Amino acid sequence: MIDPARLSLNLITVDHWSLAEAVARCAAAGIATVAPWRHQLDGDSARIIREAGLAVSSICRGGFFTAPGADADNRRAVEQAAELGAPVLVLVCGPPRDRNLAAARATIAAGIERLLPFAADHGVRLGIEPLHPMMVGERSAIVTLGEALALARRLDSPHVGVVVDAYHVFWDPNLESELAAADGLIAAHHVCDWLVPTTDLLAGRGLMGDGIIDLPRLRRLIENAGYNGPVEVEVINPALAELPAGELLADIKARFLRG
Amino acid sequence: MIDPARLSLNLITVDHWSLAEAVARCAAAGIATVAPWRHQLDGDSARIIREAGLAVSSICRGGFFTAPGADADNRRAVEQAAELGAPVLVLVCGPPRDRNLAAARATIAAGIERLLPFAADHGVRLGIEPLHPMMVGERSAIVTLGEALALARRLDSPHVGVVVDAYHVFWDPNLESELAAADGLIAAHHVCDWLVPTTDLLAGRGLMGDGIIDLPRLRRLIENAGYNGPVEVEVINPALAELPAGELLADIKARFLRG
Repeated sequence: MIDPARLSLNLITVDHWSLAEAVARCAAAGIATVAPWRHQLDGDSARIIREAGLAVSSICRGGFFTAPGADADNRRAVEQAAELGAPVLVLVCGPPRDRNLAAARATIAAGIERLLPFAADHGVRLGIEPLHPMMVGERSAIVTLGEALALARRLDSPHVGVVVDAYHVFWDPNLESELAAADGLIAAHHVCDWLVPTTDLLAGRGLMGDGIIDLPRLRRLIENAGYNGPVEVEVINPALAELPAGELLADIKARFLRG
Repeated sequence: MIDPARLSLNLITVDHWSLAEAVARCAAAGIATVAPWRHQLDGDSARIIREAGLAVSSICRGGFFTAPGADADNRRAVEQAAELGAPVLVLVCGPPRDRNLAAARATIAAGIERLLPFAADHGVRLGIEPLHPMMVGERSAIVTLGEALALARRLDSPHVGVVVDAYHVFWDPNLESELAAADGLIAAHHVCDWLVPTTDLLAGRGLMGDGIIDLPRLRRLIENAGYNGPVEVEVINPALAELPAGELLADIKARFLRG
């Protein structure tokens, strides 16, 4: 049975609400932790979250190291994380710029290495998130947990780790062995479910329990690797916007506790 | 420069044509090898292909070991391969039936093992095709080249190997090391391209050169692993049905020679 206090709502799940609405509704629903995305933030966000008594588990996202201007944008992302008291900045590392995946991966590694001292100065941990391989062309050349872990090990700093999102990694036959060797390297854990059929590469994700991911097993593997922090519910699916706010949050809480 | 005689057209690419049309048009276009799918076959297919002077590189597909009735259907697929003179039966291994991926993988391994003596008796090689991880829920629990190779090694028979489809494996950071150790285990090679953006999980594939896969590099890795057989062009995209037949085949040939 999971500790209900570990639930954090990743606010992309309710991107159809304003940040103020999301914060008020989470507070009312007894969800004490949130994870906003940067496009949801403005100068007032830190105050709104603090006054509602909520904690922040992470912010999404830095990364896109293969794009021009990445360094400046990533330093700004670190500052935003620090302003919000978010311990983790989630990195979506960026796609290759051409047909050379190895070059993209080297660019990403170098970009994280350059950002790391700035993150350390701000007390923010960089969370390298491997994305599902179907996102390689548009979002991330880092598509396996093994590669994210190898990268984190190479950087060898308490200010870098990996984000284990069930949706992105559950298919991997090496999951168990990779996580068995990941002690201390897990910075965050995201959950949702893989629907069958899946009809959209980005926004076809399901609520926990509606798909084929064995979430309790994955959480056990992650806990065995020493991670007992927040578990973010991050579900990208436009169908969620059809549900009444209170009903959606109650459903998320119930599913979280069952999983 | 690739030997043009290595080109084989996987006939799912032109599934909007009848088998007789596809065979006649390939013969006219100087494409000497084809790979039909089983739903395209009838009692006359072997004769039509033979009389046109074409060879068959493989047939698609056996597999789906996690479904009821798989054994009988797979023996029939082996017989069809033998009837057509196809040296390889491509195996799409089947999705998990529940949340237990490890159980599905064990069921698949056992199913291939049971089929193997029958395939050997018919002179047909079973080609285990790892599919892209986005197909795990609907088509295959085998989603990495590494796992397919490990399975082929365990079965340890000249009548089993792996199918390396560029589309399904190009994203894998372990591709180079896996292929470097794959000598003798490659049964077939398929090519197409990964489009950016990709808008469909099954039928969003591109013609070679239109996407981000470094196909020449992949072919080099495969040749270094001792595979110099047919290279099947397999492009699943409804947009191809809009093109005039002669133009489509000429374009495929030209792109094949460039890649």
